[in-house]
Amino acid sequence: MEFDTIAAISTPMGEGAIAIVRLSGDDAFAIGDQVFRGKKGKPLTELDSHTIHYGHIVDPATEQVVEEVMVSVLKGPKTFTRENVLEINCHGGLVSVNKVLQLVLKHGARLAEPGEFTKRAFLNGRIDLSQAEAVMDLIRAKTDRAMNVALNQMEGRLSKLIQKLRQEILETLAHVEVNIDYPEYDDVEEMTHSVLLEKSSYVRDEIEKLIKTSEQGKILREGLSTVIIGRPNVGKSSLLNSLVHENKAIVTDIPGTTRDVIEEYVNVRGVPLRLVDTAGIRETEDIVERIGVERSRQVLKEADLILLVLNHADDLTFEDEQLFEAVKGMDVIVIVNKTDLPRKIDLEKVEALAANHKLVTTALIEEEGVDELEEAISSLFFDGSIEAGDMTYVSNSRHIALLHQASTSINEAIQNVEMGIPIDIAQIDLTRTWELLGEIIGESVHDSLIDQLFSQFCLGK
Amino acid sequence: MEFDTIAAISTPMGEGAIAIVRLSGDDAFAIGDQVFRGKKGKPLTELDSHTIHYGHIVDPATEQVVEEVMVSVLKGPKTFTRENVLEINCHGGLVSVNKVLQLVLKHGARLAEPGEFTKRAFLNGRIDLSQAEAVMDLIRAKTDRAMNVALNQMEGRLSKLIQKLRQEILETLAHVEVNIDYPEYDDVEEMTHSVLLEKSSYVRDEIEKLIKTSEQGKILREGLSTVIIGRPNVGKSSLLNSLVHENKAIVTDIPGTTRDVIEEYVNVRGVPLRLVDTAGIRETEDIVERIGVERSRQVLKEADLILLVLNHADDLTFEDEQLFEAVKGMDVIVIVNKTDLPRKIDLEKVEALAANHKLVTTALIEEEGVDELEEAISSLFFDGSIEAGDMTYVSNSRHIALLHQASTSINEAIQNVEMGIPIDIAQIDLTRTWELLGEIIGESVHDSLIDQLFSQFCLGK
Repeated sequence: MEFDTIAAISTPMGEGAIAIVRLSGDDAFAIGDQVFRGKKGKPLTELDSHTIHYGHIVDPATEQVVEEVMVSVLKGPKTFTRENVLEINCHGGLVSVNKVLQLVLKHGARLAEPGEFTKRAFLNGRIDLSQAEAVMDLIRAKTDRAMNVALNQMEGRLSKLIQKLRQEILETLAHVEVNIDYPEYDDVEEMTHSVLLEKSSYVRDEIEKLIKTSEQGKILREGLSTVIIGRPNVGKSSLLNSLVHENKAIVTDIPGTTRDVIEEYVNVRGVPLRLVDTAGIRETEDIVERIGVERSRQVLKEADLILLVLNHADDLTFEDEQLFEAVKGMDVIVIVNKTDLPRKIDLEKVEALAANHKLVTTALIEEEGVDELEEAISSLFFDGSIEAGDMTYVSNSRHIALLHQASTSINEAIQNVEMGIPIDIAQIDLTRTWELLGEIIGESVHDSLIDQLFSQFCLGK
Repeated sequence: MEFDTIAAISTPMGEGAIAIVRLSGDDAFAIGDQVFRGKKGKPLTELDSHTIHYGHIVDPATEQVVEEVMVSVLKGPKTFTRENVLEINCHGGLVSVNKVLQLVLKHGARLAEPGEFTKRAFLNGRIDLSQAEAVMDLIRAKTDRAMNVALNQMEGRLSKLIQKLRQEILETLAHVEVNIDYPEYDDVEEMTHSVLLEKSSYVRDEIEKLIKTSEQGKILREGLSTVIIGRPNVGKSSLLNSLVHENKAIVTDIPGTTRDVIEEYVNVRGVPLRLVDTAGIRETEDIVERIGVERSRQVLKEADLILLVLNHADDLTFEDEQLFEAVKGMDVIVIVNKTDLPRKIDLEKVEALAANHKLVTTALIEEEGVDELEEAISSLFFDGSIEAGDMTYVSNSRHIALLHQASTSINEAIQNVEMGIPIDIAQIDLTRTWELLGEIIGESVHDSLIDQLFSQFCLGK
């Protein structure tokens, strides 16, 4: 394929040591030659691929120096986009890197849209759609596990599985074709039925297996939306502090990171908790009052996990019971806090109310029970045993939706065959399944969907 | 010199397309070899310098893949630090880039201190101290002009000037030495006097010239601290909006930049205005009341530029006159706003009050007079004529202070010679001048100063 040459700043905005302007396309080096003055004076096209060169970016109109840079010459097709790629490695100032970008735009490059580099890698066939989506997941990963899920997908594990299933379907369809072409042979028909059932069941089982991973996969990718509720003064803030301090808000151990970036995420044994309305809990203690408000109920409904805190040193109140009522049927961990103080709460009643939930006792101020709580959170969603490195998770909502549709479709095919409905009806369902799986890896998707998917990427990727 | 191997994330924190972990030191490649698995399987040390290689970062304990990367092999001494440099170019996720950093730290690298890469470039003699300081100025530059000042300094223009002056002083000192060693030759003494005066005067004049550039240089580097004052409802917010919208808050034209980063800077014809207490102006209109408060007076005192706004359609009040009183002796531009409305203000009185200030009339709502205002701001500090690209500015407060001391010192030498005081006294002053100039380029500075200077750098530089 042939595209114009795109350019963008590929490093995050902000003061940093290095900022990179990346160009991709046929004219990447020709445009580079207009603004780059290398020490050796050789044109970029004459330099070896995968080499680095010192020099200056100048405004060719005035020959005034704009930046001192290192450029990386990467000749297609062995590049991220499979096109010619030029990376201009600047000193990292906002003004100078912007100036460099403006210069290359002035001399023939077009400002890349978000995700356009990765989109080209996809359109040029270096990666499929699920791999491209994984690139962005990798960047946004909040925990090691989420990173591993994305990395596996990026390396093509999911793609290979999907391709294998599609291949099975294709072979089955070939059988059906033979049956339709030569209906006079009875034994072909019989064999076709049994092959169809066997192969379809295999494909269905594999799809179901993938769907099974998706619940955890989605949590790893998007985080577990978590709400802490409880009456005033039961220890909600202490709970929040324990979770944050014990586990550190994610990536705060990277020096120079501001907490604000993703501070609402807490990594609990590989499970990313997204603490909803944390600020509200910190600042006010009126969450119980707000339970009555419709919006608060909505927040609760959308939560993946509720941490319901009770006071060990106080009577169980009507308000507490209302909270239990509000979270019925949800994933709840009940925390009886302040066990360091004398008991006043009716534990039997608590156990009855928490019959369908996990129950943990803590003395958060004394840092007691935090391990048990974390274990409860982790095992609620991961049975404490699964290592993301070992298996392929489906984590992307788009993929999950397609798998569900594919499952429905192949189940219909199987039912039809079992009910003895003419085999060319099954052909339609199988073809549909094959197409749905194809959409996951981008082999049968609309341009508009592709545009929309990549527009969610960050700039310069 | 020999140092241990340091490592840091050299790109700004945040979601981006590319994140770089940079290593520098003798063991950069040995450490890299432990965690990098290249496609060709060759050790990094055996690869050519200035080449780029595709592969994976793995945790050697488990061989589990952590990132898909490109590594740049840069062998000393032709590198930024003059040491072996390995740059690991990651996909840009916070978790994965942090993991890569942790792995190299685990296998022998030490986390770099802020500015430590540049410090090594200095300690290893690739750049002098003023050039190293310019690296950070370049990153922090708010306007093109400031960028050019930093770039010139980084390329060594200031260093060359300083070195030339030091050389002159050394030659003069050699003359003095001859005079002291052979006092019996009268003509030597006479010649020494005249040479001493001539050379010293030359050095003094050059130092004075540099000091002259420093006022503008400092503004370019640090921005012009600007305060907008005026009674309620005279158009302060309109003024702020005009300045921001006409000129765009700096770098907001880079796609993907959040305004917050440096939104208090506005680039007016190359002059970076740092709008002090902007938020206050936006939110409240009580700045006049606050003038009475000591803290507000302090803000005014520290400002480089005052924009005093009056209402053309209202009488001049006692409060207005108080404002004039408060800014006496400062750089003030008086703005008579709302000329689109019928005049009520006493213009003669305004002109009398603004006798020592610039006066501009505007109708900001109608976008009238904004050009004149910008011209007034720009010419107040730059006479509208100076192009930063053409000359060497001294912009750094440390350099300016040293130049002032050097000026004092050489003036004393000249006075002493003129007063016929024994020439070996002048020797002391000249030596002192030579040392002071040396401090600018880092040839005679304490380790503690060096540590302190580099600690102001950003991480990974």
